Amino acid sequence: MSKSYAIIGTGAIGGFYGAKLSRAGFDVHFLARSDADFIRSNALFVDSVDGDFNIPHVNVYRDASSMPRCDVAAIALKSTANGILSHVLPWVVKKDGVVLVLQNGLGAEEDIVKIVKGASVLGVLCYVCAIKTEPGRIKHLAFGHVTIGQFAANGRPSGITSTIRDINADFSKAGIVSENLPDLGAARWKKLVWNIPYSGLSVVLSSTTEAINANPHSRQLAHDIMTEVCVAAAACGHPLEQSVVDAMLIYTDTLPPYAPSMKLDYDAKRPMEVESIFGNPLQAAQSAGVHVPRLEMLYRELAFLDTMNQT
Amino acid sequence: MSKSYAIIGTGAIGGFYGAKLSRAGFDVHFLARSDADFIRSNALFVDSVDGDFNIPHVNVYRDASSMPRCDVAAIALKSTANGILSHVLPWVVKKDGVVLVLQNGLGAEEDIVKIVKGASVLGVLCYVCAIKTEPGRIKHLAFGHVTIGQFAANGRPSGITSTIRDINADFSKAGIVSENLPDLGAARWKKLVWNIPYSGLSVVLSSTTEAINANPHSRQLAHDIMTEVCVAAAACGHPLEQSVVDAMLIYTDTLPPYAPSMKLDYDAKRPMEVESIFGNPLQAAQSAGVHVPRLEMLYRELAFLDTMNQT
Repeated sequence: MSKSYAIIGTGAIGGFYGAKLSRAGFDVHFLARSDADFIRSNALFVDSVDGDFNIPHVNVYRDASSMPRCDVAAIALKSTANGILSHVLPWVVKKDGVVLVLQNGLGAEEDIVKIVKGASVLGVLCYVCAIKTEPGRIKHLAFGHVTIGQFAANGRPSGITSTIRDINADFSKAGIVSENLPDLGAARWKKLVWNIPYSGLSVVLSSTTEAINANPHSRQLAHDIMTEVCVAAAACGHPLEQSVVDAMLIYTDTLPPYAPSMKLDYDAKRPMEVESIFGNPLQAAQSAGVHVPRLEMLYRELAFLDTMNQT
Repeated sequence: MSKSYAIIGTGAIGGFYGAKLSRAGFDVHFLARSDADFIRSNALFVDSVDGDFNIPHVNVYRDASSMPRCDVAAIALKSTANGILSHVLPWVVKKDGVVLVLQNGLGAEEDIVKIVKGASVLGVLCYVCAIKTEPGRIKHLAFGHVTIGQFAANGRPSGITSTIRDINADFSKAGIVSENLPDLGAARWKKLVWNIPYSGLSVVLSSTTEAINANPHSRQLAHDIMTEVCVAAAACGHPLEQSVVDAMLIYTDTLPPYAPSMKLDYDAKRPMEVESIFGNPLQAAQSAGVHVPRLEMLYRELAFLDTMNQT
């Protein structure tokens, strides 16, 4: 029997991947806030570079306690909303179910394994450009593939587990290009090597990735911050290839002028994922005994700006 | 015979101290740009907390080559305009005259001694809140005292020279509270301990000194940056007292909400003194072999913002 999925958070990420699973015939249940009524009355729309589609009859809920317990819960909230998970997760996933964390940054899995002790927790790294343009409508602009790795409480590589393969098989049925990760931690850190400088500096310098790379001072700063993130990753047991810093600088040169989602959040006065993307990696680095002053400075700048933006 | 003064730059600083010297009967000549015609036709006005006054008949010039060679030239330009000094100084100061540098930051004296080889070069640190409110009109809000030290090419303390005493005597006659500095370098670095974090962060975080101090993240960041500046000062031969960082934090708590002049420059899209206040101290620290990553990051952030602001 095919697995049931609870999608926790029906923004761009939850809406996009949840709609793909729905379209493939999986039994999918969405937790939503402001969009719930629109989706229930109309449909969930995906305007996609791969072809538009919509899900007309969506199981959508405002309240986790009304949802059925599913085989898999996919966390697609902003990490700033993760405080609700201790209430939500016990309602929506079976005791021996699977929890997928479709978030950036560090620290979510550590909290989730404490909430759902019997569940298997996987990280899903999403490489997708998608935005919610209006209630119940997701615009999918580019990419869409994911990588999936198993979380281990000791932070060590788990290898490719049967749960990874199971989820990967479902995602493949749903038309999602999906890759298995033997070392979730390394993949999360590698994504941070890009996210920390470009998301952070795009907010602090009120700028695009293109402008950051074009100016010699900010380009050097992005380079130096990426180097610190690599040092932190290695100290935390996830050494990355030497070439990753230069490769990411050059990759970013090829992007169109791009505002990372953290910049969009800041401009819209929404909370930024400061702790998961900056604070938790900083803490991990410091616990591992390494000195990362630029990461620390960027974290403090963003923590200040986030507070001022929310008041 | 009393000395003649050339005031190079008739903004808030040059206008205020030049007007005081004029009022005391010194022969003062002002180099101005946009304000020259207004001042010549009207007067130079000082609206001061210590009592308003004006100088009705001002010797004011748009062109340095029209000015008489004076005993003393006081440089009161923004340091970003120091490129004109190699043209200006030979016209306005006698070969064996005195040059006073009324600027913050590092590096101006080194350049000036190359331009006027026979002159004696002094640094004058101004502790004053004054702004130019309109052409030919300076508003003096608070303070006003100065400290005066002799520049030595080797950067070492010069002690209290007879030139310092001469200038101090003139300033005292003009009603300016003035103190002699045995170690100009130490005083410049000590002023940077405040200026670097608060001027820099007020721009990067778009904030006042009050908000920076009120938030625990930005307060810690100001503390950490000040600590780096102290490390740099010591490496450059000017060890400051251990207590200076905490003392400046607490002093800043007592200020009213205050936007440093660099923030005013940024908001008005004027060039910021990035090199003299950040770049030159950074270079001095690096030449002395110390690692100041936060100062370097702040410098690069400001260099980026300044470039974007000017284009």
